[in-house]
Amino acid sequence: MTIPTSIPSTGPWAVIHRNAISHNLSWLRQRLYHCSPGAPVRVWAVVKADAYGHGLTHTVPALQQADGLGVTTPDDVRRLRRQGWQKPILLLSASGVRAEEICDPSLGELHLVIDEPSQLDQLERLARLPESRRPTRLNTWLRYAGRLGNLGFDVTEYAPAFERLLALKTKGLVVEAGHLHHYAGAEDADALRAERNEFATVVGRLPGPFSTGNSAALCGSLPETLRQEGHWLRCGLLLYGASALPGTAGAQLGLRPAMSVHARLVAVRYLKAGQNVGYGDTFQTQRDTWVGTACIGYSHGVPRQLWEQGHALVGPSGRPVPYAGRVAMDCLSLDLGPNACEQVGDIVTLWGHAPNGAALPVETVAASCSTIAAELFTGLTSRLPLISA
Amino acid sequence: MTIPTSIPSTGPWAVIHRNAISHNLSWLRQRLYHCSPGAPVRVWAVVKADAYGHGLTHTVPALQQADGLGVTTPDDVRRLRRQGWQKPILLLSASGVRAEEICDPSLGELHLVIDEPSQLDQLERLARLPESRRPTRLNTWLRYAGRLGNLGFDVTEYAPAFERLLALKTKGLVVEAGHLHHYAGAEDADALRAERNEFATVVGRLPGPFSTGNSAALCGSLPETLRQEGHWLRCGLLLYGASALPGTAGAQLGLRPAMSVHARLVAVRYLKAGQNVGYGDTFQTQRDTWVGTACIGYSHGVPRQLWEQGHALVGPSGRPVPYAGRVAMDCLSLDLGPNACEQVGDIVTLWGHAPNGAALPVETVAASCSTIAAELFTGLTSRLPLISA
Repeated sequence: MTIPTSIPSTGPWAVIHRNAISHNLSWLRQRLYHCSPGAPVRVWAVVKADAYGHGLTHTVPALQQADGLGVTTPDDVRRLRRQGWQKPILLLSASGVRAEEICDPSLGELHLVIDEPSQLDQLERLARLPESRRPTRLNTWLRYAGRLGNLGFDVTEYAPAFERLLALKTKGLVVEAGHLHHYAGAEDADALRAERNEFATVVGRLPGPFSTGNSAALCGSLPETLRQEGHWLRCGLLLYGASALPGTAGAQLGLRPAMSVHARLVAVRYLKAGQNVGYGDTFQTQRDTWVGTACIGYSHGVPRQLWEQGHALVGPSGRPVPYAGRVAMDCLSLDLGPNACEQVGDIVTLWGHAPNGAALPVETVAASCSTIAAELFTGLTSRLPLISA
Repeated sequence: MTIPTSIPSTGPWAVIHRNAISHNLSWLRQRLYHCSPGAPVRVWAVVKADAYGHGLTHTVPALQQADGLGVTTPDDVRRLRRQGWQKPILLLSASGVRAEEICDPSLGELHLVIDEPSQLDQLERLARLPESRRPTRLNTWLRYAGRLGNLGFDVTEYAPAFERLLALKTKGLVVEAGHLHHYAGAEDADALRAERNEFATVVGRLPGPFSTGNSAALCGSLPETLRQEGHWLRCGLLLYGASALPGTAGAQLGLRPAMSVHARLVAVRYLKAGQNVGYGDTFQTQRDTWVGTACIGYSHGVPRQLWEQGHALVGPSGRPVPYAGRVAMDCLSLDLGPNACEQVGDIVTLWGHAPNGAALPVETVAASCSTIAAELFTGLTSRLPLISA
């Protein structure tokens, strides 16, 4: 585990480990192969929200083995095309996107998720245009609302909506019409099975490929699920090395964490017992101790409440130490203990790997502030530079 | 209250109300004048963390009446100079900044906060350089650690450190050496008074100006404090229209909120009672109801836990409605009720002002997810465009 040489001298930074991302995609490929050797499935690598906060420029080069990439905005599609991605792109959350935006031929092979009836109205209007003004390589996926409930079509709406898509296929506007489902509770094996069965019943004998997935479903212990998942699986969180299963870190599954968040100690002070640290009356030193402060805070995306339960790794040894007082806007403090040997300039690791390889799983950090890895990843702000390793 | 015409058709956005920022600075000026008409004080407008998430480009034009701007990184100083700011700049959290960085004459009149002994070592090395290689307009502020405790010099360290600064002034390296303090508990009048008295005792008869402040101290009910605060007051949060006093919104003090966060409904679905919405088993509809979904989520900086207590404003009327299920990465849902008339495309306001002027104070939203306005402001990510109004 090495730290790039171009890291900031004072401010915080995140290291993005590209090799971890390509490893995690291979991990999924192997798992799919073992579960279903005779029926290879295609993989949408989901890179929405700037690749779950890891940055498209750092991430896409590590995803060359994916069959397609999934995003949420037309801008993301354009950015991926500018980066040279030529394979299909899935536009999730396409509801509200104007029809003219998807007619741009520079968008390449576009797969549009249909969440809402007005999208069908728009496509039907497009189908009445001369062929020269229509999109050329448009694929569609009808979303089943399922237990998520907030987007898509329910059990009574689904088949009629799908008929409209099939008519658009007949008219040559769309290349293919498939079935898409996003699980609401895939962490739980029974809930997952129920959701799958419900989807299978709704789709019934309708023609077309189907796409399900999400990382919790793909990490779980249900190989028979994987076999039946369909033609295009979607994965997001696992690509970045984090587990979507409560109580399990990605590394325990064989995944490699792709992000490490660091800062440097800018002050190390020896404080007497009973000294207040940070805002309010939330923390007092329990004994004479060294307190180190690093210039990273909630304005970089570190949750303000993290200090209550969490710990960080500090110094060359990656020694775990508790927080000392609330996370502030641009700094946070650590209780280094009475025998600390750390100095100004030493690296602090908030999650990921310390320079010597010591690990602090993002899942542990997320649990300590009552959230999930995905919120920590995507909550990082533009004030935290990302650096490739 | 108007919404700019250039807003995104699908994605979320934040409106930055420049007039509110200039109003808030005037509000502070008036308050200071009334408390202390004979002794005008200068004001550092703190624009660290991209102006508390409001964006330097939107904010600085509204702060022309400030005497100086406060930031935390040399990069911020350079950005402000490129934007044409010619008055002084205060570099907070300067510990760890390399000496050569502050010698750049293009940085203009720079005020450096001294947090740590190694900064004094660096300045003493600079003082031995030929005059042509020294910074020309360097001012310094020695930080008293006080109750925050994590940065600065304590009661025994303070006077010797200040002597070193005075020696640097004698040698012509620094123009002025002042005293700086940041309160840890200014929300409470008694705690604030104790902190002030402690600082006054530590500074004692040492020469030089002093700088205190923070928005909680400046909004509180202690005019005699303001009179005695010193020569340079620092304010941050209040400039953006938010109150730092628990239980009080900025508008109650006479401040004007400078940020409104919006998205559009991309789906409105009628759900039967007992339908699950969102991930996990966290929310079921209690009656047949309309549920609206907007494409904004925790990847834009909306706390994932906001749904538990919070509400949003929806539609042309700015009607308050509760959340329906967990905030997801790129969408969230609202329980619009059985008689809802909202449609796809209608604007949702997460905090700030709805298009018709209805207000949802950011302080209310922050309290509903156990945080403070500053974390909501600075937690917004680069995926949420800022638009001036």
